[in-house]
Amino acid sequence: MHRTKVRIVEDALDANNTIARANRDDFDRHDVTVINLMSSPGAGKTSLLERVLADLDGVRPCVLEGDVQGSLDAERLASLHLPVTQLNTAPGFGGECHLDANMVRSALPALPLSEVDLLVIENVGNLVCPAEFRVGEDVRVMVSSVTEGEDKPLKYPLMFRACELVLVNKIDLLPHLLFDLDKFLHHLDHVNPGVERMLVSARTGEGVEAWRDWLVALVARARAGAVR
Amino acid sequence: MHRTKVRIVEDALDANNTIARANRDDFDRHDVTVINLMSSPGAGKTSLLERVLADLDGVRPCVLEGDVQGSLDAERLASLHLPVTQLNTAPGFGGECHLDANMVRSALPALPLSEVDLLVIENVGNLVCPAEFRVGEDVRVMVSSVTEGEDKPLKYPLMFRACELVLVNKIDLLPHLLFDLDKFLHHLDHVNPGVERMLVSARTGEGVEAWRDWLVALVARARAGAVR
Repeated sequence: MHRTKVRIVEDALDANNTIARANRDDFDRHDVTVINLMSSPGAGKTSLLERVLADLDGVRPCVLEGDVQGSLDAERLASLHLPVTQLNTAPGFGGECHLDANMVRSALPALPLSEVDLLVIENVGNLVCPAEFRVGEDVRVMVSSVTEGEDKPLKYPLMFRACELVLVNKIDLLPHLLFDLDKFLHHLDHVNPGVERMLVSARTGEGVEAWRDWLVALVARARAGAVR
Repeated sequence: MHRTKVRIVEDALDANNTIARANRDDFDRHDVTVINLMSSPGAGKTSLLERVLADLDGVRPCVLEGDVQGSLDAERLASLHLPVTQLNTAPGFGGECHLDANMVRSALPALPLSEVDLLVIENVGNLVCPAEFRVGEDVRVMVSSVTEGEDKPLKYPLMFRACELVLVNKIDLLPHLLFDLDKFLHHLDHVNPGVERMLVSARTGEGVEAWRDWLVALVARARAGAVR
C-alpha cells in the first residue's frame, strides 16, 4: 500500500517534469528568463515585486500570479502598469495548494512572452508543495519573513533547499521581535549551505536595491547562457 | 479529464471522512474533546499552546504535533511536561502538506486517550489543504497573525470558513505594521459571518486568558453534549 503510494507520487512528478521541460523550451524560444517565487502566505512576495518591477533598468517584466482564488495581488501589480496574468488553482484544478507545470502551461497563451525579458511566477503561499513542482523556471527564489520564526529552515527544509536566493523580509520589525537572525542564518546554512540571501524590508525599502540589481543581473546572465 | 480529476478528489475525501468518523468514535469512547489547530507557518500555534496548556483549570490536555519533519515544536511543548506525540508527514506519508484522518488514526495507539480530557492536534503550517481534511475533531481553530496582512480571509476563504474560532495573533506588533484590523475583521465576516474571534499576543500574553477560558468551556460543553 505504502509502496504503491510512493510510485504514484513519482509518476506524477515525472509527468510534471516532462511538461516543465516543454514550458522551458517555450521560454527559451522567446528568450525569457523565468523566476518561481515562493513563500508562506503573507511573507511579502507581492510587496517585494511592487518595490522593483516598475523600474528594472530596461528589463521588461511580466507576472503570472498564482492564487487559490481571487485576483487581489494581480490587481496590485497591474496598477504598476505591468502585464499580469491571473492563474487560479480553485476552478478546474481542485483548489490546489501549489502551481505545477501543467497549470503554468495552460496559462502560456495568455502571457506576452514575445514582449518581455523576465517572467515572475508568483506561486501560491505555501512552504511545502510548491517546492516539489518545477514549472520550467530558471531559478527559484523564496521569501522568508522574520515574523515566521528562526526555526523555519529546519521545519520546511525542502523549500529552503530548493531555492537559489532567500529574501529575508520584514527586517524593519526585528527590534520588535524575539527573532535571532544569526540562529536563522545558521539554520539556513544547515539545510542549504552558502545559499545567497538578502536582508530586505518591502515596507521601508531597505535592501530592495540589491534585490533589483540581482534580477537585472540574472536576466543578463541568462542571456549569456550562464544560468541553469 | 477534468471530470475524472474531480471524482478522484471526492473519493479521497469520502474515504477520509469515513476514517474521521472512526477516530471520532474512539475519542468519544474516551470522552476526549478534540481540537484541530491550523495556521500559516510561523503564525504562533505552538506559542499559543505554550501559553495555556500547562494550566487549564483541571482539564488534562495532550498534543498531537503534526510536522513535515522534525520535532522542534513537540520538544517545546514536552518541556511543559505535557504528553506530546509527534506525527511526521514526510516518512511514509510522502511529505504531505496537511494531516488527514488516516495519519491521525495511525497515531491513536500512541496517544494517552484514557488519561486526558483534551487533545489538541497541531496541524502542518499551511492555509490551504488542512482545511479540506476532517480528522475526527470537535472543533477547528485557526491562528491568523496580523503580520500576514488583512487580505488573507479573501485569499484563503476555505480555511477561514472551516473554523469555529479565529485567534488573531501578534497584536503587540500592530503599532509597527501597515495592517488595518477593521479591514481584516470585515474580510473575515465576509467569508465567515460572525465567527468567534479573539485578539491575542502569545508574546505579551494579551488576550490569552480568554483563549484559556474558551478551551476550558469547550471541554465542559462537549461533556454536556453541546458541541457538534
